[in-house]
Amino acid sequence: MKNKILLLGLMPLMAFGQQNVHIPAPEKSPEVKDNGTVVFRIKAPEGKEVKLSGAFDGVTPSRSTYEGGEYVFAFDSVAPDLYDYWFEVDGVKTLDPSNPYVARDIAWLSNIFIVPGGNADWFATADVPHGSVHKNWYRSDMLGGEERRMTVYTPAGYEESGETYPVLYLLHGMGGDEDAWGELGRAVQILDNQIAAGKTEPMIVVMPNGNALRNAAPGFTGDGMYIAEGEHSIDPEKIFVKSFPEIIEFVESNYRVKADKAHRAVAGLSMGGGHSWQLGLRYPDTFDYIGLFSPAVRWNGAGVDENGDDTELIKLLERQFANPPKKYQIAIGRDDFLYGINESYRELLDSLQLPYEYVESEGGHTWRNWRNYLVDFLPALFRNP
Amino acid sequence: MKNKILLLGLMPLMAFGQQNVHIPAPEKSPEVKDNGTVVFRIKAPEGKEVKLSGAFDGVTPSRSTYEGGEYVFAFDSVAPDLYDYWFEVDGVKTLDPSNPYVARDIAWLSNIFIVPGGNADWFATADVPHGSVHKNWYRSDMLGGEERRMTVYTPAGYEESGETYPVLYLLHGMGGDEDAWGELGRAVQILDNQIAAGKTEPMIVVMPNGNALRNAAPGFTGDGMYIAEGEHSIDPEKIFVKSFPEIIEFVESNYRVKADKAHRAVAGLSMGGGHSWQLGLRYPDTFDYIGLFSPAVRWNGAGVDENGDDTELIKLLERQFANPPKKYQIAIGRDDFLYGINESYRELLDSLQLPYEYVESEGGHTWRNWRNYLVDFLPALFRNP
Repeated sequence: MKNKILLLGLMPLMAFGQQNVHIPAPEKSPEVKDNGTVVFRIKAPEGKEVKLSGAFDGVTPSRSTYEGGEYVFAFDSVAPDLYDYWFEVDGVKTLDPSNPYVARDIAWLSNIFIVPGGNADWFATADVPHGSVHKNWYRSDMLGGEERRMTVYTPAGYEESGETYPVLYLLHGMGGDEDAWGELGRAVQILDNQIAAGKTEPMIVVMPNGNALRNAAPGFTGDGMYIAEGEHSIDPEKIFVKSFPEIIEFVESNYRVKADKAHRAVAGLSMGGGHSWQLGLRYPDTFDYIGLFSPAVRWNGAGVDENGDDTELIKLLERQFANPPKKYQIAIGRDDFLYGINESYRELLDSLQLPYEYVESEGGHTWRNWRNYLVDFLPALFRNP
Repeated sequence: MKNKILLLGLMPLMAFGQQNVHIPAPEKSPEVKDNGTVVFRIKAPEGKEVKLSGAFDGVTPSRSTYEGGEYVFAFDSVAPDLYDYWFEVDGVKTLDPSNPYVARDIAWLSNIFIVPGGNADWFATADVPHGSVHKNWYRSDMLGGEERRMTVYTPAGYEESGETYPVLYLLHGMGGDEDAWGELGRAVQILDNQIAAGKTEPMIVVMPNGNALRNAAPGFTGDGMYIAEGEHSIDPEKIFVKSFPEIIEFVESNYRVKADKAHRAVAGLSMGGGHSWQLGLRYPDTFDYIGLFSPAVRWNGAGVDENGDDTELIKLLERQFANPPKKYQIAIGRDDFLYGINESYRELLDSLQLPYEYVESEGGHTWRNWRNYLVDFLPALFRNP
């Protein structure tokens, strides 16, 4: 018997996976150097043309070489941030074969990497206590009686503490779903890192699917592996906003939360900024902290009638600000295509002498801005409840 | 004031995302037809050579065309299953630009799709009640005092029922992590679908990270975005298996479970099969259901000394089977490179007259087999506790 035994401990380390494990390309790509230089490498022995796209589209590399069948693109002095990119090989979009880090925007995949420093240090996974992330399903009677998916972040220590926590509802844009703030927004890392640093209060963060026409991210709906094409509803008031109490009820029934206005916040980007704006108007006693990031505000049907008459909106605003939220923030980039409607909305708030904070940044309607807005918004929440 | 209002409801639907939303390539790829034909399409106007790899590597298409800058590969009579694939464009690995469904195996990304029918129907997301998926962190004093990540599935209705549930611990192989059974193993879909069909008991499924040298999947460790290279420990007894009670304790403290042998199962593939095998031996009163899928059994240090003497293993087996588990199953493919050691292990069990079930399938050390083994293993669990 003994001499039949195969001593597995002596087998080469990779033998376990020989039939199912692929080893990534040996190229290190991207290589992020301490001096801010970023180097991309791709083996393309037969490639006629390789182009770098995404955040680096149209940016001329500091150096580029083609040697031994490998393209190398180096960019110097890259500012700290999270970047997305992909290659085009002979005109075909190609994810970097050496980089397994991929983020999804609806049905579009990009590689990502981080250049450390500044706010980007909040985006990185660090050796700090980590919160848990839950993918839950809740039933929505208002949205067809179907089950809908939400992502819930509970802070490190939640399991053991027995305590109750405040809640931030964090809403995605039209081009997103319940995974968006986690994947592209780095919300989990930002929360973990800011809470560990004592910069932000431990809180629960709820990221529901805000697309009234879909109940979950691609691959998690009854449609199976459908290809999402951004077919979101733009009628938030009548659908998603009205169904929001179902989300709050699910969260408050299933998580240990402080269930009052002083311990609820809502923030969102673009369409989710519009949702947050409407949630503030429609439920004036529910949220004490409201963050509108590049928000789709002041539209037809949301307190503004089809002729542009905002009498109803003004009434709602006056009701909301009779007992004003502790924080009401609008953040937008100077190049954002929603800048104009936000400017007119701010004029309306000014004319009504309603208090709000305003953050104006460089850039446009981008995740780069939304990550930074979240970094700046979180530390103010629930500090003086 | 009124004439300044921009009526957002009139904006084109995609305008919200114009600066950050990409639309996938209009090609439908893959197209899975009712008759079992699968069509792949990729625009490669400047491509010299496009090859289809992965599950279709080396398989000759039934038809292929190149027209108008688009390659089309059609395969007829594709058997029901979940398949992985990717393209090579002029020698460069390229994920299908039209298919956002990607699964990760360590650091290797592939596109996936499903041809419905047979067991593959368990793999698809269906319109059934869905369980929740939790990414938790638990502290392991035995593994350096660090926090380690695990995936926990709770069945549909868990939140509301107030009931306690049995638990399956489901372990990955050397080429895997706490995401593997979910991503490549389709465990979440299989559980949702089988529970909804009444074929499998509602249960909690715990998928910890079994790599003693890493505490989490790539991107979730303090190493940040490291590139995993399959550097797993092959000494399960001394490290991961010994630390397993910490996992059970975390689960039983944080989830509503039935905490006895009759309501605990453990199963795993390859290295995780070895872990499951050892867990049965080392904790004979803990698990009543043991599933060994292509398991790495009977190695040096795990009851077998460096000279191949298995006296200690036999003692452990006799202790375990003095009060035998209700189900002890070995499943392996005829082409599996671990077939030999499993054959010798079965001979040992036979010589000791210890009862076990044996499943021998076609094929080798593949996720295709492991998904099927799971489909067949689950319905027997916790039926007659």
